[in-house]
Amino acid sequence: MSELPIRDELRGFEPYGAPQLDVPVCLNVNENPFAPSEQLVADAARAVAHAVRDLNRYPDREATTLRERLATYLHGEAGVALDTGQVWAANGSNEVMLQILQAFGGPGRTALSFAPTYSMYPEYARDTSTAWVTAPRDEHTFAIDHDDALKAVAEHQPTVVFIASPNNPTGTAVPLGLVTALHEATDGIVVVDEAYAEFRRDGVPSALTLLATHPRLIVTRTMSKAFAFAGARVGYAAASTQIVDVLRIVRLPYHLSAVTQAVAVVALEHATELQARVAQLRDERDALAVWLREQGLEVADSDANFVLFGRFADRRAVWQGLLDHGVLIRETGPDGWLRVSVGTPEETTAFKVALIDVLKELS
Amino acid sequence: MSELPIRDELRGFEPYGAPQLDVPVCLNVNENPFAPSEQLVADAARAVAHAVRDLNRYPDREATTLRERLATYLHGEAGVALDTGQVWAANGSNEVMLQILQAFGGPGRTALSFAPTYSMYPEYARDTSTAWVTAPRDEHTFAIDHDDALKAVAEHQPTVVFIASPNNPTGTAVPLGLVTALHEATDGIVVVDEAYAEFRRDGVPSALTLLATHPRLIVTRTMSKAFAFAGARVGYAAASTQIVDVLRIVRLPYHLSAVTQAVAVVALEHATELQARVAQLRDERDALAVWLREQGLEVADSDANFVLFGRFADRRAVWQGLLDHGVLIRETGPDGWLRVSVGTPEETTAFKVALIDVLKELS
Repeated sequence: MSELPIRDELRGFEPYGAPQLDVPVCLNVNENPFAPSEQLVADAARAVAHAVRDLNRYPDREATTLRERLATYLHGEAGVALDTGQVWAANGSNEVMLQILQAFGGPGRTALSFAPTYSMYPEYARDTSTAWVTAPRDEHTFAIDHDDALKAVAEHQPTVVFIASPNNPTGTAVPLGLVTALHEATDGIVVVDEAYAEFRRDGVPSALTLLATHPRLIVTRTMSKAFAFAGARVGYAAASTQIVDVLRIVRLPYHLSAVTQAVAVVALEHATELQARVAQLRDERDALAVWLREQGLEVADSDANFVLFGRFADRRAVWQGLLDHGVLIRETGPDGWLRVSVGTPEETTAFKVALIDVLKELS
Repeated sequence: MSELPIRDELRGFEPYGAPQLDVPVCLNVNENPFAPSEQLVADAARAVAHAVRDLNRYPDREATTLRERLATYLHGEAGVALDTGQVWAANGSNEVMLQILQAFGGPGRTALSFAPTYSMYPEYARDTSTAWVTAPRDEHTFAIDHDDALKAVAEHQPTVVFIASPNNPTGTAVPLGLVTALHEATDGIVVVDEAYAEFRRDGVPSALTLLATHPRLIVTRTMSKAFAFAGARVGYAAASTQIVDVLRIVRLPYHLSAVTQAVAVVALEHATELQARVAQLRDERDALAVWLREQGLEVADSDANFVLFGRFADRRAVWQGLLDHGVLIRETGPDGWLRVSVGTPEETTAFKVALIDVLKELS
């Protein structure tokens, strides 16, 4: 590889990826454990058959129908009315993030976030030649300190600030007051990554409610989690029409396939059924957090479909022990912590049984 | 928009796009006019129903089955045996191009091509902060002069050279000797964009035949044209496994949806049926070129599914006249020329009738 004219900053990197191991219980990548219903499968097949008939033609470049339906969904979910032109969609929220940095980051510019946070952000920055800096979160609560955050903005002058809320891998939701303060403190774009927003606890608001008054705010979402649609690769964003128009300049033409648009619209038609499962997962998540604390473990408050727990002197040993028991979770986040996704009741039980065994074996 | 921290080089740009007008005969974006067969539609619906059942899970990040099938297809199409690890796939060949520039272009680096050529290349360069330069093609034949090409490489020291072959919008195939000479003249990556390769005339070789001996060569293809699958957004590339491994570093994780992978595999199973239509389109293309010359027009030799013809003192008037007759073609390429895609026999007839009328009206 050394003979290839690869960019210096890519040398030594490995392709991203959580290990994709063949394990009975996979609780490692925050997937929704509930497969689509048979009705959704049938509706999707019908919609795709219809879309395939025209597949020799390029897709709707603006994905208008999908964006309309996403706007309707967000209205129901967060009570925020949006025009279609305020909603953007792409192949996963990671493509949305890349487009945001292509438009507002790039050489000579800096993106800021608050660590520990989503491990892909620095890769998006690297891939767009954007400088990447982080300010630390509280090491116990994983909250972002208001004054420290404003200091980091003043010091680094970022053109893009990423705030994952709920944060991955800690599950921490960010108070909207902090979003407002950051938006006031910068002339840059403030991105609130709400990939896991539907799992937030009662009373935790969405940053969507700030859009009307925060012109440089972008709220990103995904269909991967709440919609149980990780395999379909549909992420989206809500922002001002001006911001969406800028994203339309850097997006690859026809970036979203006609098939993707069709299956996403079908999933949105099944939103009610999918939201019932989200409610179930929230209950499972809360119960799991309680149980983990009952085992004497430290647990980060979570508004997402996963729980960060610890702390372990040798987290790798715990992770490996669980894997040996057929349960794959994720070794991520600050040292000493592990992250487990909320699965089906059966998967959660398997995780609990395995964890009890592993902790006994290691003690 | 001026208050947003948009990158300077994006200011004043409009989102890309051929006009998407509602016109009876659309011969403007080089689509394959033949819709998928009912058998393909049924097979795709079945495959998608199967894929949707697991859509709560992330897709195969490496798209292994699809890449295996693409390798098999290329073996049949060009007689070149490739390992799966030598084939890469993404959301349209434009995503492949972006990944190539993310890996091998970027700030402080230059990409070179030969104008007139595909209008999106400079946008890929802009979006990856890669400098963009072109050397001119012969203004009559649109061929690339060997010595001029080597001089351009020596002058600009590009890390990526793009050669569209057949070239868009001229239809011109590049002799493989020139590819070899450029590969020898540079330490950079040489990309031969064969989006339209299946339409090449008998005896015109594919640059795939050079892969074994040209370690910095990437040959890109698409399913949009020969496979009549523009709506599905599947582009791909063949190169060394080392180059593919570099592209895997910059690709967004899970960039290719499970649904896209499934429908693409189905289309590849129908390759024979689709290739028969390619043969028909090649014949139509050759007949159309002959007919245009019989009208006293200049026509660029084409190995693609479109024909560049001219020259018109006021090409805009001809384009508009055709549109007024319900036929949408593309005003692109050097001044005085227009590009028409090869459609169904009925569409070609409509184009001919309209063109005769328009040329009369304008004379």
